[in-house]
Amino acid sequence: MSSIPDLAISRRIRRTPFTERVEKLGVKRYSIVNHTLLPKAFQRSIEDDYWHLRKHVQLWDVSCQRQVEIRGPDAAKLVQWMTPRDLRKAKIGQCLYITLIDQNAGIINDPILLKLEEDHFWLSIADSDVLLWAKGLSLGRGLDVTVNEPDVSPLAVQGPKAEILMEKVFGPSVRKIGFFQFDTVDFNRNSLKVSRSGYSKQGGFEIYLNKSSLGNDLWDTLWEAGQEFNVAPGYPNLVERVEGGLLSYGNEMTRSNNPFECNLDQYCCLDGSIDYIGREALQRISENGPIQRIRGVIFEGEPAPVCASPWPIIANGKNVGHTTTVVWSLQLKANLSLAMIESEFWDAGQRVIVETPDGIRRNGTVVEFPLSII
Amino acid sequence: MSSIPDLAISRRIRRTPFTERVEKLGVKRYSIVNHTLLPKAFQRSIEDDYWHLRKHVQLWDVSCQRQVEIRGPDAAKLVQWMTPRDLRKAKIGQCLYITLIDQNAGIINDPILLKLEEDHFWLSIADSDVLLWAKGLSLGRGLDVTVNEPDVSPLAVQGPKAEILMEKVFGPSVRKIGFFQFDTVDFNRNSLKVSRSGYSKQGGFEIYLNKSSLGNDLWDTLWEAGQEFNVAPGYPNLVERVEGGLLSYGNEMTRSNNPFECNLDQYCCLDGSIDYIGREALQRISENGPIQRIRGVIFEGEPAPVCASPWPIIANGKNVGHTTTVVWSLQLKANLSLAMIESEFWDAGQRVIVETPDGIRRNGTVVEFPLSII
Repeated sequence: MSSIPDLAISRRIRRTPFTERVEKLGVKRYSIVNHTLLPKAFQRSIEDDYWHLRKHVQLWDVSCQRQVEIRGPDAAKLVQWMTPRDLRKAKIGQCLYITLIDQNAGIINDPILLKLEEDHFWLSIADSDVLLWAKGLSLGRGLDVTVNEPDVSPLAVQGPKAEILMEKVFGPSVRKIGFFQFDTVDFNRNSLKVSRSGYSKQGGFEIYLNKSSLGNDLWDTLWEAGQEFNVAPGYPNLVERVEGGLLSYGNEMTRSNNPFECNLDQYCCLDGSIDYIGREALQRISENGPIQRIRGVIFEGEPAPVCASPWPIIANGKNVGHTTTVVWSLQLKANLSLAMIESEFWDAGQRVIVETPDGIRRNGTVVEFPLSII
Repeated sequence: MSSIPDLAISRRIRRTPFTERVEKLGVKRYSIVNHTLLPKAFQRSIEDDYWHLRKHVQLWDVSCQRQVEIRGPDAAKLVQWMTPRDLRKAKIGQCLYITLIDQNAGIINDPILLKLEEDHFWLSIADSDVLLWAKGLSLGRGLDVTVNEPDVSPLAVQGPKAEILMEKVFGPSVRKIGFFQFDTVDFNRNSLKVSRSGYSKQGGFEIYLNKSSLGNDLWDTLWEAGQEFNVAPGYPNLVERVEGGLLSYGNEMTRSNNPFECNLDQYCCLDGSIDYIGREALQRISENGPIQRIRGVIFEGEPAPVCASPWPIIANGKNVGHTTTVVWSLQLKANLSLAMIESEFWDAGQRVIVETPDGIRRNGTVVEFPLSII
């Protein structure tokens, strides 16, 4: 495509508590996640935003990470039934990365689970209606649980200066929040959950705003306090995420993939000690091992176009995989792809050919994450 | 906003079997429905496309109307459990407009149900993951049924010349397909379902392409045959839809609304003779009657901006409703809104004030659909 199409706006594409501020700062591009706007570019180039993210601090409107609230006597039972990760030792105040799988071990979503109380959880979700999945399961099975989407909108504060900015606004207690832990802070006489997490490798926090009407206030407070730290609006940065090997639901994983294919083996309890949807399928796949896995592929030539659908990856004259996301790595100064590669060809160093849609066949090499070179 | 933001493209936003052709024809704007591209503007203005739709014939890539396939011994049981519409007399070959509701009678989706066999159904869905809802319900309840998203992508042929074009391509049998009926036609030695349906009031068909690789062929065949009928690329036209009083899930109805509020009373069986999710809630609401309903509101002044979130509707100095979708009606030469209005104020002729986001309070009048004036 020579020019990028606009996005048609309607009420169905939900605005967020931060959309007004994001518009004021000149948002130039959106994606849609969970029927909600996700900013993806502002006035500066994505390259400039990348370098800024690695040096300073950014505010990201990630309200599209909707929370699915599961609460009630059977809440823990439902949540454990939904994921192969062993939750028996999960503690209140902990964030846990989990996959949700179906009876064939196909991935439904890969949310962050926040354990608020023994009988009260949030799933901070990627792009699929986990609300309907959880409601359907609980209604079908007759579980004593309520499943809702509360008025909670995450604002991410990401980058090396995130901690100093957060401390300035919320006080020194935020320093004590461990990685993938959350605590409560006070804002305008409201208790907000704050976790040390986020969709970058630069460190930072996510603030779970629980009152939409405070969106402008929260943004403005962080914005003003952040001036001395060179704060800027940002968004999950595609280049930074791919260099960091962070996966994206809908890109690296779909319902056609199982957790092993996405290198999530460590989050799968296979010893039979817990029961969950898809356990038998997962055990069966585990016995033979997965037939493909996500790897990196570095490949030559000019920066490739946007990867809007998988491109073939070839070795020994046959199709051995496909790209899932492709960026121009600013560290490597080369094309870098996350890619699903068949088992015979997934070892680091394997030479492959990537067929880009411009018809060019480009030489590439399989790499594993984390990339030691970055 | 002064300029409309772009849409960020990735594999997660799915392309369709027709995207290549749609790009070639210069698609200018997309919406996202069911994680899939929906064209919303081409090179001509939306006004020109409106008049063209009313006179000629258009091809619409509505592949985003994904099919949720429900099949197996318990298929009929599951489908009836999911909807308040009485399906006991549904016939093979029939399309039925239904709502799916949750236990509080909140609307989950409003698909078209296609009854393919006694134990085999498609739900042609609006924008929510009905696949997860149906899978969750069946898994939770232990129903003997498979739930899938097959490789089926609807292409709509809409407008007064749709029938003559369809006859030219598929033969005279398509003339016999009644409104909201479907039949099978042959295309390149593939059997395709074709229904007389579509998201406009201009008449037409939807072709359920069941093999993505045939997308270009199907498009090209209709395109070439349609040259003598002045065929053009199109899309669900916002102005035409609102003038016709057609509702949109996510705009006029959400999980916060029940079917009565959306004037779908006729699709709700309340006599207790069938069992479905949300029946008790629906019966309870029915006893007192709904507190609000979708109506039209015609209001004065210059063309209003895009309605990206509900605008307040005021009468007697108090808030009595909100807009859901707003267009500049080309028939009325006035602003026309679909709007949710409280019971005391929903009668045709009621004077109201619409508060548009430019801060202007505009005088308006409640109207009922169908609009006699159009």
